[in-house]
Amino acid sequence: MFTTTPDINSERLLKDLNRLAQIGAGADRAIHRIAGNDADMAARDWIDKTMRVSGLHSYYDAVDNVFSRRLDTSGPWLLIGSHSDTVPAAGHLDGAYGVVAAMEVLRTLHEHDHPIADHVETVAWFDEEGVMEGSKGGLTGSTAFTRDPHADDLFAYIELHVEQGPRMERDGLDLAPVTGIVGVRRYDVAVRGQANHAGTTPFELRQDAGRVAARVATELRRICQDIDPASVGNAGVISFDPAAANVVPGAARVELEVRAGTDQALDRIEQSLSDFLLLAADEEECAAELNRTSAKPAAVFDKRVYGVVEEVCRERTDRCEPLLSYAGHDASVISTRLPTAMLFVPSTGGFSHSNREHTSDEHLILGTQALLDAVIRTGETLLPGLLTKHLTTV
Amino acid sequence: MFTTTPDINSERLLKDLNRLAQIGAGADRAIHRIAGNDADMAARDWIDKTMRVSGLHSYYDAVDNVFSRRLDTSGPWLLIGSHSDTVPAAGHLDGAYGVVAAMEVLRTLHEHDHPIADHVETVAWFDEEGVMEGSKGGLTGSTAFTRDPHADDLFAYIELHVEQGPRMERDGLDLAPVTGIVGVRRYDVAVRGQANHAGTTPFELRQDAGRVAARVATELRRICQDIDPASVGNAGVISFDPAAANVVPGAARVELEVRAGTDQALDRIEQSLSDFLLLAADEEECAAELNRTSAKPAAVFDKRVYGVVEEVCRERTDRCEPLLSYAGHDASVISTRLPTAMLFVPSTGGFSHSNREHTSDEHLILGTQALLDAVIRTGETLLPGLLTKHLTTV
Repeated sequence: MFTTTPDINSERLLKDLNRLAQIGAGADRAIHRIAGNDADMAARDWIDKTMRVSGLHSYYDAVDNVFSRRLDTSGPWLLIGSHSDTVPAAGHLDGAYGVVAAMEVLRTLHEHDHPIADHVETVAWFDEEGVMEGSKGGLTGSTAFTRDPHADDLFAYIELHVEQGPRMERDGLDLAPVTGIVGVRRYDVAVRGQANHAGTTPFELRQDAGRVAARVATELRRICQDIDPASVGNAGVISFDPAAANVVPGAARVELEVRAGTDQALDRIEQSLSDFLLLAADEEECAAELNRTSAKPAAVFDKRVYGVVEEVCRERTDRCEPLLSYAGHDASVISTRLPTAMLFVPSTGGFSHSNREHTSDEHLILGTQALLDAVIRTGETLLPGLLTKHLTTV
Repeated sequence: MFTTTPDINSERLLKDLNRLAQIGAGADRAIHRIAGNDADMAARDWIDKTMRVSGLHSYYDAVDNVFSRRLDTSGPWLLIGSHSDTVPAAGHLDGAYGVVAAMEVLRTLHEHDHPIADHVETVAWFDEEGVMEGSKGGLTGSTAFTRDPHADDLFAYIELHVEQGPRMERDGLDLAPVTGIVGVRRYDVAVRGQANHAGTTPFELRQDAGRVAARVATELRRICQDIDPASVGNAGVISFDPAAANVVPGAARVELEVRAGTDQALDRIEQSLSDFLLLAADEEECAAELNRTSAKPAAVFDKRVYGVVEEVCRERTDRCEPLLSYAGHDASVISTRLPTAMLFVPSTGGFSHSNREHTSDEHLILGTQALLDAVIRTGETLLPGLLTKHLTTV
């Protein structure tokens, strides 16, 4: 190491998180910054103004992503940040934490006139959540950015985020370098049988579409676990038709999703799910279809950037283990364009998309400091000549 | 045997069935005689007028049941009949067949001046189906009748009905004496877990209410069959809350019903169902309740009247086996007040509550003739002195 590591301003970090949490807050501090609504645009305005301190500047791109960096620098830059929009009735950390932490890291490096400061850009992505009317599943700002020529000026992307799940707390972890982001496939299971009198029709003469649907919802867990213990699945919606206690369901639907760390695992789970569905339908004399309604590919993060993130996390705490992200993030899209990695801090109780979302101040500070560490180390690792030159010329 | 058995008038039977089928018929001959509507009251009017032939008379009781019998008789009477109301878009046989067949039997006996003719009364029950607004689950007319002093003047009740199921056709039966009517219990299964992110929440930390519900819907069949192979069950309605593919269901509901030939079997199935529900809920870290929302006791028919019905059926055809009724009937209620039995003819394809309801003319005629046989034999068996006296005095 040939550069020093300044400490972040913890007080300012927590104050700014609190300030942003007030924009769009409704009853019980639940936050409503749906992408593009007044609160979301007010939050972007606050980020923009906050980052226009002496020596820094800020700007919107064509799709309302907000960027900030030092004035009069020419890159290449390391991009850090997250999204500032939320789901309805959200918590104050999902996205916002990564944005405010990135703002804090840039300002700390800038104030200490650290040589990497000229090579850091922060971002607050637009519409990660996909709740905005007309959104095509979210990740709107980051997806647009992958086609923006400005991406050529960047050499890596690091995103800090709350875990949004209970794994870290369960395992007593302070920090988790993230190896990648699960791919997500959604399915609509449609079963057709024959509605019939639930009393007079013997079991063996039924074509019970509801039973096929219930069997699929029951077996999904086993199907996932048999193929990949790290995969998860969920049967979230189910309905029978006609819906009457005394009528054998003539049709049934299940909406389900599957998440796994590689596309190969997703392929195998899909095949196993399809095999089970057809077997169950056959046994119940029904017809069934497994319709894939959406598919987000799995993201496996860049080895070098991930390696740096893991290294700095382990230097800050022994309570640190690699994790796969089971939630989608802008980093997933950006990883198709730039060397990318992420790091997580724990979510108390695993709650997210809820006003019960919480992370201790200690972990919020630790995560931001680790992000700053990772920014310096990534610069040293990916651009050693640039920073050396900088050190010698400053 | 000391009385002769006249043949019914098959032509009149089929003509009258066809005539009644036109009252309340809509598109595709589907029938809409909801109890108390204009069509239902017009049908009662037609029955009333049709039975006021020379020597017979007809009357309504306080709840619009329509009765007919010979003039100037003093009982006791054997009651035969069924209901003339229908579900919406019904077939032309459910209920109506038993009413028209009873009308035919009385008229035949009356025309032949058979000694039993003085001791037969026909009935068209009001609101069997329970579709009428304000109906408390149907069987309104027969239930009221059990509290009517006129029931004291009757010595038995026999109801002829279409099977409304596929069992007889499957087994190649012409006639089936009915041993009893299943009891029906309905349940509302309520499961409470914890809604959570379907990606970030590992399987072992979920409280998946949906999975508990799906497991119950899946296992219901096994639970019934393990306890009583003649029982049936149906999970007809299911819902998860919140209903989203990416949210682990935090609550779930299933509406189900169970039918069995004895209340003891129903008790045992209920216990097994409750045990399974609590086990599954425990395994998924959920809370669950099995709420019984309704219960109709099983009816086991009178040994003597059933014995007569079985005897006359076997005399008419070798293709005859006892059957349990899996659908409810007025006979179930009447059996709590009078010695009761039923007999079935086959339903083509098992269809009922549908304009696809059908029974061959041969079976319609055979069933009506068997009902006439049963009426005479029941009189001879239960009231031998009365008929002998009659024979000697006429």
